[in-house]
Amino acid sequence: MDSCIFCDILASKLPASVVYQDEVCTAFMDIQPVNEGHLLVVPNEHAAHLANLEPKTGSHMFAVAQRIAQAVRESSVRCQGINLFVADGAAAGQEVFHVHIHIIPRYRGDGFGFRFGPSYGQRPARTELDRVAGQVREALSDSGSQ
Amino acid sequence: MDSCIFCDILASKLPASVVYQDEVCTAFMDIQPVNEGHLLVVPNEHAAHLANLEPKTGSHMFAVAQRIAQAVRESSVRCQGINLFVADGAAAGQEVFHVHIHIIPRYRGDGFGFRFGPSYGQRPARTELDRVAGQVREALSDSGSQ
Repeated sequence: MDSCIFCDILASKLPASVVYQDEVCTAFMDIQPVNEGHLLVVPNEHAAHLANLEPKTGSHMFAVAQRIAQAVRESSVRCQGINLFVADGAAAGQEVFHVHIHIIPRYRGDGFGFRFGPSYGQRPARTELDRVAGQVREALSDSGSQ
Repeated sequence: MDSCIFCDILASKLPASVVYQDEVCTAFMDIQPVNEGHLLVVPNEHAAHLANLEPKTGSHMFAVAQRIAQAVRESSVRCQGINLFVADGAAAGQEVFHVHIHIIPRYRGDGFGFRFGPSYGQRPARTELDRVAGQVREALSDSGSQ
């Protein structure tokens, strides 16, 4: 495996401001926060992509993210809402190839948000949505029969 | 409870292009997709916010989202990466107050991405990150003792 900064953090080779750790996952502050209080939940065992992450591990990480999100809301961090975010793959904006769930505190006027492609806002016909749903269902049933 | 469009979908009062359903959650196509194949995973039982969502339910939803994300990648939908996204609270961009995990297929040049507030890009000092981490840890331990 190439060097991985999250593995280095987990091995205490790099510093981190840790908020939570258990046998499965660790949460620490993002060093380039979107807003103050921006955190990452990462699996202790290296997994580059969601496809490499045990579903049991992902499940646990989400429950931990939920609990930390609530703690952020209850803390003195400025927080009127929370975004949870995962980027899986370079085309999705993943920069560190060790799965991580972002926990981003949000408040009105923070300036954070989405930009959209030119076709966004269109509402496809139901027949079109049904067609795409069919493609995904087919892939799901293929994967289920493996 | 006020009317909820996701509850109406789950009660078959509104149409949806369903991809997956089990006893805990349901996945269907977003009617205003960021990219083709944009899906939502919602709990079958109404929960407006993450704070109202049983951790067991959230965990299960994430595992389902992982599985569907993989199916989208393996389907004929254009997909080089995946974003998972949750908006919790109006300040975080939540528009339908029934928890949902977005599954967004991504590809290079799709035009989707983030816009950031004016201070983004700054790297706070470690002492500052440690201070915020301490605030969150304190709130976590308070919630743990309840």
